[in-house]
Amino acid sequence: MTRQDGRAFDELRGIRITPGFAEFAEGSVLIEWGGTKVLCCASVEERAPHHVPGGEGWVTAEYAMLPRANRERSRRDVSKLKLAPRSAEIQRLIGRSLRAAVDLKALGERTITVDCDVLQGDGGTRTASVTGGYLALALACRKLLAEGVLHRDPIVGYVAGVSAGIVDDRLLLDLCYAEDSRAMVDLNCVMNDRGELIELQGTGEGRPFTVDEQQSLVRLCAKGIGALIELQKNVLHS
Amino acid sequence: MTRQDGRAFDELRGIRITPGFAEFAEGSVLIEWGGTKVLCCASVEERAPHHVPGGEGWVTAEYAMLPRANRERSRRDVSKLKLAPRSAEIQRLIGRSLRAAVDLKALGERTITVDCDVLQGDGGTRTASVTGGYLALALACRKLLAEGVLHRDPIVGYVAGVSAGIVDDRLLLDLCYAEDSRAMVDLNCVMNDRGELIELQGTGEGRPFTVDEQQSLVRLCAKGIGALIELQKNVLHS
Amino acid sequence: MTRQDGRAFDELRGIRITPGFAEFAEGSVLIEWGGTKVLCCASVEERAPHHVPGGEGWVTAEYAMLPRANRERSRRDVSKLKLAPRSAEIQRLIGRSLRAAVDLKALGERTITVDCDVLQGDGGTRTASVTGGYLALALACRKLLAEGVLHRDPIVGYVAGVSAGIVDDRLLLDLCYAEDSRAMVDLNCVMNDRGELIELQGTGEGRPFTVDEQQSLVRLCAKGIGALIELQKNVLHS
Amino acid sequence: MTRQDGRAFDELRGIRITPGFAEFAEGSVLIEWGGTKVLCCASVEERAPHHVPGGEGWVTAEYAMLPRANRERSRRDVSKLKLAPRSAEIQRLIGRSLRAAVDLKALGERTITVDCDVLQGDGGTRTASVTGGYLALALACRKLLAEGVLHRDPIVGYVAGVSAGIVDDRLLLDLCYAEDSRAMVDLNCVMNDRGELIELQGTGEGRPFTVDEQQSLVRLCAKGIGALIELQKNVLHS
Amino acid sequence: MTRQDGRAFDELRGIRITPGFAEFAEGSVLIEWGGTKVLCCASVEERAPHHVPGGEGWVTAEYAMLPRANRERSRRDVSKLKLAPRSAEIQRLIGRSLRAAVDLKALGERTITVDCDVLQGDGGTRTASVTGGYLALALACRKLLAEGVLHRDPIVGYVAGVSAGIVDDRLLLDLCYAEDSRAMVDLNCVMNDRGELIELQGTGEGRPFTVDEQQSLVRLCAKGIGALIELQKNVLHS
Amino acid sequence: MTRQDGRAFDELRGIRITPGFAEFAEGSVLIEWGGTKVLCCASVEERAPHHVPGGEGWVTAEYAMLPRANRERSRRDVSKLKLAPRSAEIQRLIGRSLRAAVDLKALGERTITVDCDVLQGDGGTRTASVTGGYLALALACRKLLAEGVLHRDPIVGYVAGVSAGIVDDRLLLDLCYAEDSRAMVDLNCVMNDRGELIELQGTGEGRPFTVDEQQSLVRLCAKGIGALIELQKNVLHS
Repeated sequence: MTRQDGRAFDELRGIRITPGFAEFAEGSVLIEWGGTKVLCCASVEERAPHHVPGGEGWVTAEYAMLPRANRERSRRDVSKLKLAPRSAEIQRLIGRSLRAAVDLKALGERTITVDCDVLQGDGGTRTASVTGGYLALALACRKLLAEGVLHRDPIVGYVAGVSAGIVDDRLLLDLCYAEDSRAMVDLNCVMNDRGELIELQGTGEGRPFTVDEQQSLVRLCAKGIGALIELQKNVLHS
Repeated sequence: MTRQDGRAFDELRGIRITPGFAEFAEGSVLIEWGGTKVLCCASVEERAPHHVPGGEGWVTAEYAMLPRANRERSRRDVSKLKLAPRSAEIQRLIGRSLRAAVDLKALGERTITVDCDVLQGDGGTRTASVTGGYLALALACRKLLAEGVLHRDPIVGYVAGVSAGIVDDRLLLDLCYAEDSRAMVDLNCVMNDRGELIELQGTGEGRPFTVDEQQSLVRLCAKGIGALIELQKNVLHS
Repeated sequence: MTRQDGRAFDELRGIRITPGFAEFAEGSVLIEWGGTKVLCCASVEERAPHHVPGGEGWVTAEYAMLPRANRERSRRDVSKLKLAPRSAEIQRLIGRSLRAAVDLKALGERTITVDCDVLQGDGGTRTASVTGGYLALALACRKLLAEGVLHRDPIVGYVAGVSAGIVDDRLLLDLCYAEDSRAMVDLNCVMNDRGELIELQGTGEGRPFTVDEQQSLVRLCAKGIGALIELQKNVLHS
Repeated sequence: MTRQDGRAFDELRGIRITPGFAEFAEGSVLIEWGGTKVLCCASVEERAPHHVPGGEGWVTAEYAMLPRANRERSRRDVSKLKLAPRSAEIQRLIGRSLRAAVDLKALGERTITVDCDVLQGDGGTRTASVTGGYLALALACRKLLAEGVLHRDPIVGYVAGVSAGIVDDRLLLDLCYAEDSRAMVDLNCVMNDRGELIELQGTGEGRPFTVDEQQSLVRLCAKGIGALIELQKNVLHS
Repeated sequence: MTRQDGRAFDELRGIRITPGFAEFAEGSVLIEWGGTKVLCCASVEERAPHHVPGGEGWVTAEYAMLPRANRERSRRDVSKLKLAPRSAEIQRLIGRSLRAAVDLKALGERTITVDCDVLQGDGGTRTASVTGGYLALALACRKLLAEGVLHRDPIVGYVAGVSAGIVDDRLLLDLCYAEDSRAMVDLNCVMNDRGELIELQGTGEGRPFTVDEQQSLVRLCAKGIGALIELQKNVLHS
Repeated sequence: MTRQDGRAFDELRGIRITPGFAEFAEGSVLIEWGGTKVLCCASVEERAPHHVPGGEGWVTAEYAMLPRANRERSRRDVSKLKLAPRSAEIQRLIGRSLRAAVDLKALGERTITVDCDVLQGDGGTRTASVTGGYLALALACRKLLAEGVLHRDPIVGYVAGVSAGIVDDRLLLDLCYAEDSRAMVDLNCVMNDRGELIELQGTGEGRPFTVDEQQSLVRLCAKGIGALIELQKNVLHS
């Protein structure tokens, strides 16, 4: 039994990555993942925030959706004078995920801000942001190395994220919007290239889920992340 | 090998619950959990939000810390004109968790808002908010039943939350602040009285964690949540 | 003719003070005054604001109500993106009152912020905040003395506040909410232990009041403040 | 012994009132009181706020200072995204004072907003706003009567305000800025034409004040308000 | 003498237009104009704003830059809690320009909001927004016609915009960023397909400009706009 | 054929200028231009903003309308927590216009902020602000020269602004509100005393306008600005 778009239960949607889409950013990719399109830009600032120990750097993320990224237009955050709470939550997740890929001491006293702007959202925008944001970050570090600003690559491994969920009691990898909106359970994983977890968020708004189901969803994600990291390697080593 | 406060690795801190602490709220508890103190108040409004289907109700939560809940005073959200992103994230978690305990159709066209205000924060404030917020919510529903506003209890089960983490490579249940600030991995679970998961959030800011470690942390949490739900039953049936 | 809660016209409600309710603050009390509960926390910062002459310190206050402190839930200030004007007015009053008890030169170049958060409001929250806030402030100064940070106590006397009002043409001390909401005239006094005025605010929204009535209300307040200052002495010298 | 500008201790500064300064407002005056200049405009809206009982109206006030009303330029409220707390306090005082002059039932279901914008501030801006705002309000009501919108004048009496203070231990009426900035004690009264109090605010930031001093300051104010109400009568009956 | 990118003084940069870039919007184009990239999305709402006469519709625009659209990263509007004043000015210009192309009566009681989000800014973002926004708007109207929501096309003509400026005393069409940042005079025109002006903004921050120079700049723009409208026709009729 | 107020098509309304209206500002004028009244205050601060090259100064402007400047009362910007977009646009225009009159090097490292507050708006408030703001600025510079703070006048020429428009197909100078609200085309010019343009803004919300019409409107403005600069000279040299 296949899914509405013909995929197997453990199959990712098609992904296309355009490095350098934003020319001014130190690193950038446009990641198109099924119908989801996220522009990820990494910006380097020669200054670390106050809360960071001397000699170390910081990596942070911002996440936002364009007003017409969705089926309905949403008002801009600035017109409501507040960051959407969902964006606040997601950008904290992206930041933590990306920092897991970086040796902050090797980065030195600088800040890299990774902006993830969703041009079109068709499910999985947060994991697309992690996966694409990692690439923007890695490209920015590569540029700092090439320019001699850095002498050692602060990137210490790969990091990617994907979602899985339970739809009609079937466990499915990489939900598109139509699946996501019917899902009983939704789980996001961020993992590294050793198959270890960095972030894990599962939520059962439709129904609770068993510990066994949770494990199966993590396994599905692990499989998807393996493929995503291969893709990242191709982008960085092409 | 015991912990700094003498607890076993799988032992909860002492918890004291004072129902009815806030007299005007339809339901309220002060939950004191180790050094953490959260005032949870459930307020009923005879109106459902727009996004809810006709005939159904809604349960939502707000979370905030008093300025001097922590070791350092923080500025109030209003003086910064923005909700702390961490609070935004936590109140979304609490809301989802509490809705899992409620039959929104049985609630009818009304909204229950559960305010969780941290008077003192010593670790585990989000899970204390879920655990105490559940009680405030249940007490409010009981009041609506007693007044004849509701004829059927919309509460369909128990919900509680707890954290676990990895400190010095030991897996520990219910981290206090001193442990939390040294933890490599932090994981929060919200579960129901059938041992099913409702929310799961794990994060490895200090180091990544294996899928096996993740499973062990969930098992630790499950044990703690069993004890918490006994405690909730005592409060509601005393 | 007694009042609805059996008090004489010049009698205070029952008051209970719990020093050290908030463990992290340099000084704190929970003041429960009739049905009103205010948590007062004094926080010390080793820095004075710009407008203060060199070598001197500053004392300031913030006042807020929890959303369900009242019979009806109120929206949080941050969700309206503005400090409630009533809170703005009250916190200015508290700050001026507390500064009258302090030798700012003896305090040195530091700031003490007294947060007064109303957990439950049943009338008289501003004067409970002054009376309890004074204690939090004095306890914080005592801690600074004990730690050798200060060598001379900057507290130069006692300060407390109380309200009086005209209800059904009777002059009553210390209005509870039910009386306050029917009062024609409402007057608040803050005084020191020599019976001198520090702050005086009278308002006749229901009807104007004569100069004689105003004087009688001040006398009522003076009596109440005498009792409050005895209570403060007991707390500080027990 | 005279004051720096040659006035007796109980003498008002020179006052000039220009009715109709703002042509579009239903009622307006420019009040120039010594060096203080306040533009008061009353605007009528055919709608009462929600909190008002059916059939009744409401009177409210807003107060603000132009950026260069003072010796130093201040940033605009909007650039700080918050109403100055001092303005919040003052506009509440003005609103309460003006409502004491109005029969809200006779006003009917409409709102009159009195904007008091300080073009130049040289002490006494809040009492100038009450005194001038009353005139703008009365002129607006007169216009509604003339147009047949109202059949009965909702204005039920006169209301004016003035300050007094203690400077160098002398009690002085109507402090100008230079006196105000050196005053130990500052007291504002709003009274009606029967010499009754509507609002009373006294504050001893420099030193506390005795109940006797307080009484003498109220008497000084009462004298000044008598003269101010004569002035108001001249404006309205010329 | 050619320009730094080899263009003649009256030559446009290369322009590429991708209709339908954003799949959920009723009309959208990605316009890439030299190094400038603007995503224009038209969203239809079945409701007109209050200020519009009954039976008529409205067209409005919003303009924003992504944080890393420029050589330096800018903070997001929402983190500053205010719309950038420059964006406020530009989106008003776009809205007025687009309304000139529409018969608001034929549009009926609905609102079309055209979001112009600058993904990359290399000069001329406001005129690219007008030119691309017109296409998004026209495509949305075409969709409403195809769906039978509209029976008559509300688009009454073509509208496009371009800039010209004075750099080193030479008059140049369509300044790129490098030229714009050195320009003495900058002038933007919006015109229709009859060569009539809709908007005209000229500014001489570097030096004033004569009426003759102003006329020559308008002529340069008119030439460019002719070419732009040909381009628009190709997009709409291909 | 004369206009509704009897003026010829190329005739300015009556203008009255009161220098020194605001006593505390370094320079100020009240400009009354027909029914429009704008208070312009120039404030000097001994500090230049960061974006200015070392050794140079800056001139900036802020523009706002009092709530009852118009026929209908508007809500204050601060109560909406945002600067009105129209004000944002206008104050940028005023700032650019005034800087064209100043040698920023001669000003030295200081900032002059020109506040233009519209007390009453009857058309042409932005050009009245430029024309009056120039005088406030020039008076502030004169004061700095008189005090020896400056040794060379940074004012390098005259700057004034006026509007023209097309009403019933007639080209008219200096539209009053009643004309402006019926105008098809509206054009504002800011020019210097050599007849050169500094700012030019034309907009055809009612109908597009030809290049010839645009030229005629600029010629009308040029005539008006000549008269305005004579008036400025009279104020400064009287």
